[in-house]
Formats: sequence, structure tokens, C-alpha cells
Amino acid sequence: MIKPKTRQIVLRSRPEGLPTPDNFAIRTVDVPAIGDGQFLVKNELLGLAPSSRIRMSESETNGSYDMPTPIGGVIHGQSLGTIIESRHPGYAVGAKVVLTAGGWQEMSVSDGSLTTPVDTSLAKESLWLGALGVSGLTAYAGLIGVGQIRPGDRVAVTAASGAVGAMAGQIARAFGCHVIGIAGGAEKCGYIRQELGFEAAVDYRSPAYDNELRQACADGIDLFFDNVGGRIRSDLLPWMNKFGRIVVCGMISEYNNPAGATGPSWMPILTKQLTVRGFLMRDYVHLQSWFVRDVAGWLAEGKIKPREDITNGFENTPAAFIRMLSGQTFGKTIVRL
Amino acid sequence: MIKPKTRQIVLRSRPEGLPTPDNFAIRTVDVPAIGDGQFLVKNELLGLAPSSRIRMSESETNGSYDMPTPIGGVIHGQSLGTIIESRHPGYAVGAKVVLTAGGWQEMSVSDGSLTTPVDTSLAKESLWLGALGVSGLTAYAGLIGVGQIRPGDRVAVTAASGAVGAMAGQIARAFGCHVIGIAGGAEKCGYIRQELGFEAAVDYRSPAYDNELRQACADGIDLFFDNVGGRIRSDLLPWMNKFGRIVVCGMISEYNNPAGATGPSWMPILTKQLTVRGFLMRDYVHLQSWFVRDVAGWLAEGKIKPREDITNGFENTPAAFIRMLSGQTFGKTIVRL
Repeated sequence: MIKPKTRQIVLRSRPEGLPTPDNFAIRTVDVPAIGDGQFLVKNELLGLAPSSRIRMSESETNGSYDMPTPIGGVIHGQSLGTIIESRHPGYAVGAKVVLTAGGWQEMSVSDGSLTTPVDTSLAKESLWLGALGVSGLTAYAGLIGVGQIRPGDRVAVTAASGAVGAMAGQIARAFGCHVIGIAGGAEKCGYIRQELGFEAAVDYRSPAYDNELRQACADGIDLFFDNVGGRIRSDLLPWMNKFGRIVVCGMISEYNNPAGATGPSWMPILTKQLTVRGFLMRDYVHLQSWFVRDVAGWLAEGKIKPREDITNGFENTPAAFIRMLSGQTFGKTIVRL
Repeated sequence: MIKPKTRQIVLRSRPEGLPTPDNFAIRTVDVPAIGDGQFLVKNELLGLAPSSRIRMSESETNGSYDMPTPIGGVIHGQSLGTIIESRHPGYAVGAKVVLTAGGWQEMSVSDGSLTTPVDTSLAKESLWLGALGVSGLTAYAGLIGVGQIRPGDRVAVTAASGAVGAMAGQIARAFGCHVIGIAGGAEKCGYIRQELGFEAAVDYRSPAYDNELRQACADGIDLFFDNVGGRIRSDLLPWMNKFGRIVVCGMISEYNNPAGATGPSWMPILTKQLTVRGFLMRDYVHLQSWFVRDVAGWLAEGKIKPREDITNGFENTPAAFIRMLSGQTFGKTIVRL
């Protein structure tokens, strides 16, 4: 009897700098058997996130992020699919779920950990990978759990048209904050300014960048939600107000060169009495029920307008990921299998 | 009638790098007249602190520390003396006080703000400039108010034989923590290890520095009380434990070149979920009564052993200050007028 097969995308070699298609390989394997307490999901969508890049570097060069993907290992990432086989009492065949650690593969086995049921009465499927998925929870936890957001705060967000950034800015606006978004290019800046209603948009690719930044930040920044690190973070640092908070959510500009990056002088941290906090979303899963309630409500009220960048075809996942890391995708990057 | 005269040390020019004697001048002025609600203090001791160096640079280059000393202005600093004239109901002639902002001058006028009565029943005079003065309060506030010290924490302290560092390490030990001190030279390291009882001493001037650091930090650092910034801070950062706290108290290695300094990559802040907080002692004066009670108690129990580096002669103040910034003083740097 020929066993049924399924495909995975694995790490073929560790990227140096921006990943290239050569760093990935597609592997065909037997459909995995499940054990007691497990279920099998046929994935329909993958949700891509920059943090997968961190795991592609080894521990010594990735800031000791604790779960590097081994060579030959399935790339880490979020998936959404339908349960097609189950030996788990809590998960029935036919149910739709999001697997936070589903991985870049057509079929995933889960024991129910890091699994979220998809409730399409609250929002359409794909939103459970973005606004109501890890991107949204990251933004929500970063602002509330880490950044102690307060109504009236002047909030700066980098990568502001990205999946996490756009959510952070919109959640901050829902909290009654003044939001300054930093993004690359006129299209993205127009989007966050006009469509999302941010109070200011600063285009880091524009020749007028310095001026735009100075104008947008004239009254300082109370809460800085940073997704990019690098030069843009250094440019914003002098605008922090006293007792300002910096939420270190990501540093996409440094993932491709983690060992070589340097940072800004810490003098403003001292003299302005700043609080800088790094966080990982997984430490805030206890906020999940508040998060779903709040964000589903804001989606229904139109206060959050999700945007997705959809690529078709499992084999195109690495290309979509590379486009995302290069700043060429717009909104939540999703692959439809 | 010839008016009585008194001397001040003023900023003659802004230092570039380490200050030189040329950056200072002694100016003779009339003894100031006091108004209602003021009193005049004849200073007997000056307490020197590295933070005075920050104020010698202009705002644009000192991280926007908000009170740069103007050219021709009296150098900022702590003084201790006797009230010789008073038009303030709360301060009688003959009383000893510490003026946190007394300045480098023989006579200071105060309105009672930033003034601490000296209680010699608790501790000898000079300790009110060090262990019971701004150095002690800085260490106390940094550990408790900022760093949320917990018994059992592994605490690293830089400039560990300095006025603030030695207090921070001793207070941490009084809290039941494991203390790793970093200092320059065998004498200072022997002192913090043997006399102060720190669990480990790392000599950043030793050829065995890398090894010493690796051994001392093998179990990581939960709370890092940093006074120096620069290279040593970068060396300690990889040893932080997850959810570690970094208290940014000072960065003496960067004061001489504030605009040009860079910092380490923030990757460990993200991946280890660190909290980095800068603070200024003046935001924690509400801890003063707890601080005096606790530290006076620890002094009496012998848990805190103060050490002072005393220079005689008002005119030698700049030289003592330069020695302190060069790491050549040992303990709280005090000038006896």
C-alpha cells in the first residue's frame, strides 16, 4: 500500500542577510500518524511573520532566542486549517483552528496547545491569522501589557502598515491616543493616514523624511511601539518624552544581520528616565479572551480595518516571506495553499 | 565698607572628553545677601559625583539632560556645611545641612529645597554626602524603586567600588542577593570581594577579564545595576537572564563623549524580554525617610562599610573630580574645604 504524501517547507541552509529561495527546500513526507490526544489539520492558509527569520539564525547570533529552526526542520509559523482526523476529545473532525506553531506545511499535527478555534461568526477565517491572530495579540499585548498605554498618549509605531504595526496604531487610536506611523513609501503612508486615520504618517524613504519626522514628533512621543530597530529607531529616540516607554516588539531591520548590529547610545534612556521593554507574545496568551472580545468589537465598529496581502500556492511561501522582509508586502502576509 | 568675599568654582569652557583643569576657574565674589525664606550655608565638605560631568556638556550633546551648567556658572554638586545666617523659620543658625544642589562654592544660599538636616547621632557628618547622601539614595532608589530587587536575585554592579556602586552592592547583599561586582584593578576588586563580601569581583583591567566574567556570570544576571555604560555594559548584556532588569543609573564611560557613543544591539532586550530603565535620583526623594532608616540601620549593623576618598583644599576640587572620572579615586570622593 502506498502511503499518502504531504509537503513541508524546511530550512535548507541558514540565510546570511536577507533569505534567498536557496535557503528553503520543499520536502515530501508521509502524512503523519496521530497518537492519543492529538489531531491532524489540513492547512488552508499560512500566516507569515518576520519573527520566523530570527529562528533561522543560530542561537549565538540571534540574541539567544531560544528556538532556532534546525537545518532540515520545518519553518516555524502560523497556520489555519480544518481538522481531518482526531484522537483528541476537545477537537472534532471538521472544526477550523489556528495553530500558532503549525509550521509551513500542508498537514500539521497538534495536541491542542497553541490552538485557537476559529469563530467565523465573529470574523472571517483569514482574520484569525492577522487581526485576531498573533499579529493582533502581539499589538494588543505590547500596548496594554507592556507599554501601559493611556488615553491621550502620543504613540509612535514603526512598520506602521505592517500586520502588527497597523494593528498597534489602530488599537492605540481606539484607546484615544494620537498616533504617528512610520512606513516606507507614499502608498503605505497614504494608507495609514487616510484609510486608518493615523494623525501623522512619516515616510522613511522620502527625501523630506527628516522634516516629516520633526513635524510629526514636535510634541514628543510617550509610547514608542517599535517593530524595526536600526536607524529608524535611533531617529525616533531623541523625540521621546520624559518617562516615555519603548515597547521592543521586533527589529526587522536587524534580523538579517543580528550579530553585527549596534544600537544607539543609552544616554536618552538615562536622562529622560525611559523604560525600554522587550517582550514575546507567548508570555501574554493570558490576555487572549480580552483581546478577542476587544478586537472583534473594534472590527465590528469599523475602528479596525484589516488589510491582507495574499499569495496563492504553497510553493510560493518562501518568495512571499522574502517580499515581506523586504518591505514589499502590505498588510498581513498570508499564503493560500 | 569692604564687602566680605567668597570663592566659587565655575565652568570656564566646555570639556571635550575628560575635563582638564583649564575647563574650570575660581571666581571671587561678594558673600551673597539672603532674602526672606532663605539661609546662608558656610560649606565644609563637597561631595563629588560623576553626573556633574553631564551638565558640563550642552543639551544637544548630553542626551537632553535638562540642566546644563552655563559657561561661567557654578559647577553643580552636593555640599555640607553650617548655617551662618537665616531668614527661614525652619532652619536655624548653627544647624548642619546637606545641600543637594549646593554647588562647588564656599558659601551657598538655600531656600530649604533639596536640603537634608545632618543627624550626627545616626552617622558621622561626611556620611551624609555618601552612604546617607545622594550616592546612597541613588543606589537604594535604583535597586528598589527602579529595579524591583528581590531576595535571591543575581545582581551585577559596575563601578562597584565607587560611591554608588559600593552602596548598590552592599544594599543588594543586605537584601539577600548574590552580588557580582565589576571594578578596575586588583585593589578595588580585592576590596569589594574581601571587605564588602561581594560573591564575585571581575577586574575589567585584568588580562583574565573575559574568563573572570564568564565564571562570575555563569548562572546569569537577574538585575544589572549599571553605572558605566560603554564596553563593559555590552559585555554584561549577553549574560542577562530572561525577564532580567537593567537599571541605567549612569554611564561614566560615555560622559566624556556623549554624542559619539553607540550602544549594543537591542536583540537581547527583545529575545530575553528585558526591562531597561533609566532613572534620576531626584524622582525618588519620596523614599528618603525609608532610605535613611534602612541605611542607618545597616551602617549600625556593619552591613554597610563606607569608604571615602578625601581631598583637602577647595582649590583642589577640579583635580579630585578629574581623578574620579578617570577611575583613580576609591569610594565616595569628598573635598574638605
